[in-house]
Parts: sequence; structure tokens; C-alpha cells
Amino acid sequence: MPQTYFTVGPSQIYPTYMQHLQTAMDLHLGSIGHRTSTFRKIYQHTTEQLRILLNIPASHAIFFTPSATEIWERILLNTVKCNSFHLVNGAFSQRFYEYAIALQKTPKLYNVNHGEGFDFSSIIIPEENELICTTQNETASGVQIPVSDLVELKKKYPSQLLCTDIVSSAPISDIDYNYIDSSFFSVQKAFGMPPGLGVWIVNEACLQKAKELEAKGMNIGAHHTLSSFYKNYQAFETPSTPNTIAIYILGKIAEDFNLIGIENIRKTSASKAKLLYNFADDNSSFQPLVTNPNHRSETVVVLNTNEDSSLFLEAMAQQGFIISSGYGKFKKSQIRIPNFPSSTEEQMAELIYAMEAEVSKK
Amino acid sequence: MPQTYFTVGPSQIYPTYMQHLQTAMDLHLGSIGHRTSTFRKIYQHTTEQLRILLNIPASHAIFFTPSATEIWERILLNTVKCNSFHLVNGAFSQRFYEYAIALQKTPKLYNVNHGEGFDFSSIIIPEENELICTTQNETASGVQIPVSDLVELKKKYPSQLLCTDIVSSAPISDIDYNYIDSSFFSVQKAFGMPPGLGVWIVNEACLQKAKELEAKGMNIGAHHTLSSFYKNYQAFETPSTPNTIAIYILGKIAEDFNLIGIENIRKTSASKAKLLYNFADDNSSFQPLVTNPNHRSETVVVLNTNEDSSLFLEAMAQQGFIISSGYGKFKKSQIRIPNFPSSTEEQMAELIYAMEAEVSKK
Repeated sequence: MPQTYFTVGPSQIYPTYMQHLQTAMDLHLGSIGHRTSTFRKIYQHTTEQLRILLNIPASHAIFFTPSATEIWERILLNTVKCNSFHLVNGAFSQRFYEYAIALQKTPKLYNVNHGEGFDFSSIIIPEENELICTTQNETASGVQIPVSDLVELKKKYPSQLLCTDIVSSAPISDIDYNYIDSSFFSVQKAFGMPPGLGVWIVNEACLQKAKELEAKGMNIGAHHTLSSFYKNYQAFETPSTPNTIAIYILGKIAEDFNLIGIENIRKTSASKAKLLYNFADDNSSFQPLVTNPNHRSETVVVLNTNEDSSLFLEAMAQQGFIISSGYGKFKKSQIRIPNFPSSTEEQMAELIYAMEAEVSKK
Repeated sequence: MPQTYFTVGPSQIYPTYMQHLQTAMDLHLGSIGHRTSTFRKIYQHTTEQLRILLNIPASHAIFFTPSATEIWERILLNTVKCNSFHLVNGAFSQRFYEYAIALQKTPKLYNVNHGEGFDFSSIIIPEENELICTTQNETASGVQIPVSDLVELKKKYPSQLLCTDIVSSAPISDIDYNYIDSSFFSVQKAFGMPPGLGVWIVNEACLQKAKELEAKGMNIGAHHTLSSFYKNYQAFETPSTPNTIAIYILGKIAEDFNLIGIENIRKTSASKAKLLYNFADDNSSFQPLVTNPNHRSETVVVLNTNEDSSLFLEAMAQQGFIISSGYGKFKKSQIRIPNFPSSTEEQMAELIYAMEAEVSKK
């Protein structure tokens, strides 16, 4: 039976992935060095396509890391002397905060209950804070921060660096990079690729901060420092041997997305999200965890289940639909459904039809 | 024209790679999470095959990172409070030393001229040193440290941790893990895979050291700490989302190697190395950089050229043979030829024949 991965990442592979992979292998891209002109052209092409897709201005550089998780560590090491402030709306923003503790910074956190969003009018960030850490889309709780709230936040604290984790919302969320100093994502979510590549978008202000910290004699790490990324980026190279094939394929999938047009992709995404939330609102077996529509993620839909969700997930798997469980302690009381470009409206409708049929068996 | 990559890494893709990649995609391995039983079985299988292949005892755990370069940073952060001692025999061992400086350790180094090996009888390592850093096979210079020298070194300094970089010699060098606390390699060299995966082999003594440093309040990093690797390894999991497909394929290629038998692979390797060095010894256009046969790498053969090597490399590329230039400042005065399992004896003979024909045109 065919299997469809409605998992929140790693997720269903994007339909064009295999074709790009075959081309990459035919072109011997697995054998080329990262100091060759072939590699530089790949890096350049991928960043050009990402700039179009995500509307990234020239003020921001684009770096490649093996994962987004690593970027949590790198941005804290490179831009924070002491103080980071973490808006925690789920398990991943919490881990970002814990990275700051492990790195012996003095982070502060503002957290909300699982499934709640932020009321930014009530959040006061200390003046001495250096980096504001936000998770625009929380893969654990399905809570999203509206992009307009991030803009207001930066306007309120213009002297602080603002970063946002868009791991499971890129390229759907329309980030305004004039107000975001840094963001990052990984390819195994909405880009429909296997894991092994993270993308780090960084502006000059972050680099300047890293240079300041270096000049002060701070330990900013040895591997993948911002300076080493910037230096290599001037020639479209990477500081260490990268996952070349993934960088190539990301560029080709971004190109595919650009051919469809990001506005069209976002329209389809909104329409599919509506299908999912309507289904949950109308079906008494599920309740959307996030009750405030402004805070509902469009790309990761988290639903409470009345009964042990593992039984439902097993039954769905029998029908070929692999769906994510709840995260951590919510494993058996919730399910998480991604709404990524890998699935069409028809496939989303099929999933919903199958879920309805499954719960109506009771 | 078919192209053969005689590059020292990324290198020629191993013949079975594409078939394993296809299987991985057919099995949806790009979509599975790293907390699933499917992933755990893959991790377990790959480590089992690597244990057989590299003769890794139960005392050593096997972790996966995105690259070997990252491991330089992790081992220094996790096992060195202040003092590391670096045996520098080329550009990569030099960078390992520079990582220690960047991490604000107080490393010492003992270096030799480009192309020379070590006379261990003349090396005195301070008693207070914590980690001895060696590069068993230097990809930049083609110098190898005989495994017996590493054994003697550990016997001489039993209270110090000894690590060795086997990036471009695994699985050919027969490391005796009873005398090596940690070693590491990446898959784009002798395993014939595209880059994107490093393998870190670590014993209990390293973990204990990491725990000591943590207990002392040292900053050992946040991402990929030894403790987080060990904790996850108990369940054959990884601390962060890994390159699942590469872990799977590494296990399958290790299995392929085990079917051939490591003794046979090493015999073929020795025979191919002999072909290469004989060719260089007999041909007045090239001179092996490493003159002491005991220090000659079997897997990375570095040759001095009389003329600008880029002209020769271009001519060879025209014939379909992509060969590595010299490293760094030796770019135009040397060439580097890998001797990895991806090439057969026949292919090596063809390469040599083509090189002979090329230089005889002069």
C-alpha cells in the first residue's frame, strides 16, 4: 500500500525531489569539492532562489548548516555576551532557552501554557538584553507568532537583535526581514527533503555583534563561527565540507516553488489549513489545541484527542497515512498534522475523509 | 565522456551507493523521525557493521555527526579543560590545533615539515596534558602515522586521552582501539559517499572526562555534547535530527565491505598503493612528497610535480580523470591521488596508464 507521510518533519518528500536527486548524481555532485566553481555556482543558485522565494533582502546573508538545532548554539555563541530573552511557546523554544543555559549565558524566559500564544503588550524585555529569541512556528504546540507581532516587537526594541525560528513555517510565513535580524529553518519540513541541512539567514548587525564579542575575547566557538561563514560566503563557499547534494536540491525545489509562485503556494496552504481546522472544529473527536485563531499555525495543526491518540494513529497507518503523535508528554493525547507544500488539496481532502471515516467507526 | 573522480574527498561514489539510495527512498527513510523504531534499527545495524569492519570493541560507542570537522570542536570542548597536545603533520592537523586556540584552550603543538612524519622517540608530551591529538592520515600531505606508533604513544602516556583523525584512512588503517580513546572519520573519503556525515568513535574514558568537566562547571557546549550523545545512544537515537539516509547507506556499504572482507579490501588497497608509488618512483615527472616509506599514506598519495600541476590536471580532466590538486600553498606544485575502495585495481592501472601517456607527450 502506498504510504503518505503526514508527519511534521521529517515529512513527505516533495514530488520533484527524486528527479533532482537523480540529476545531482548524474552530475557527480556527490564527488565535487566545496572549493570548486561547480560548488560555488550551486551555492549561488540556491541563495538566489531562496531570496526570491522568501523575499530576503541583500542586507541578509544565507548560510548552510547541517541542522537548525546547531544554529541555536551558533547564534547564541556569536551574538550574546550574557543576555538572551526567550519567548517560549512549546518544547522547541524551551530547548533553545536551555541551549543558552548550557552555554553559560544568563537567559531570561517568558513562557505561556502549551497551546497559547503571546500577548506582546504584556511582555517587557530588559533594556540590557542582547538577543530576543522567538519561535515563529512551534512544531510541538502548533502555536504561531503573527509576523506583524514580530515587526512590532522589533520596533519596540530596535537596539536588540531579534531572531526567529521558522523551521516548520518557511516558506509559508511571510517574514519581513527589515525587522528580523536572523531566522533559520531546516529542509525536512515544508521543503519536503530528507533531513541533513539547515539554512541560516543573518544580517550585518549579527556579524558586527560577533566581531565585537571576538574583539572582547569572548569564546564564540571554533566551528561554524559567523565570521567564518561570512568570509567563505563572499566566494559562495562554506567553512567546512557541506551536504552539497542537499544544497543543490534545495535550490531546485525553491526554483520549483518560484515557478508555481509563492503567492499561489501560500493561497493553497491557507485553503488546506482551513480544511484541516474546519474538520477539527466540526468533529467532536478532535479539538484544535490552539483556540485563538490568530495564534493557530497554518503549517503544523495540533489537535487534542478524546482517547489515546496512538490507537487512532495506528489505525490510520494501516490505511497508509502516517501522522505525527503529540510531542513529549502530549504524545498520547494529541496528534500533529503538517500542512506542507508536499501535499495537494486533494491529498489533504483524502486524509480528512479517511480520518472522518476512522472516527465514525466508533 | 564518463568521469572518474580520483579526488581525495569528496571522491568517487562507491558502486553500490545508488542502489542503496534507491532502497532508502523506496523505504521512505527520508520521511521517518529519529525517535522511531525504524530509525533505531538503522542506527543499530550501521554500528554493528562498523564494529565488524573496523574491529571496534564494546568499550567504544559510535556516534553520528554531520562532519568530522565538527568533531574537532566537540572532542576539545568535551575532554579538555586546558591542555591539548597536537602532532601537526599537515594543514588539517594544523586546523585541529587552531580549533583548540579558538576555544581558548592552551594547546601545544609539535610540527614537522610538509611531507615528513614523526620520530616519536623525540617527542615529549607534558605530564599535565589531557588530550593528545593526532591525524593518523593527513589528507593535505599524504603522511601517515603507523598504527604501531600510536600504540606506543598510548603506552608511554597511559593517563592521557589519545585521539586520532582517520578521516581519509578508515577503514584501511587497522586501528587498535585498545590504545585509542577516540577516533573519527567522514564518509566522503574511503566509503565513497557524498559528504554530510561524520562518525565519532569514543570510549568511556572520554565520557568520564566530559562528566568531570561538566561537574566542574566548564562550558562544554550545548549542541552535541558527549553526554547527550551517550544518553541517546542507549536507545540508538541521536541528540538532534540526523542525516538518516546517510546513516542507512553507510551501514549498507559497511555491510558490502564486510561481505568482501576487510582483509581482502586491505590487500587490494596495498596492491593499488604499490602501483601508484611505483609509478611515481619510476616516472621523472613526479616525486612522492613523502620519502620515508613508513610514513607514506596508503590512501592519499601526494606527488610533487616538476611543472605547474594545474596544466597536468586540466589535461587529465579532458580525458575524464578528475584528480585533486595539492593543498593550499602546494596547489600548483603537487597533486593528490586517493586510493579508496571505490576504485578497482583495473581502474587504478587505467589512471596510471593515462598519466604516463600524458606526461610522455612532453
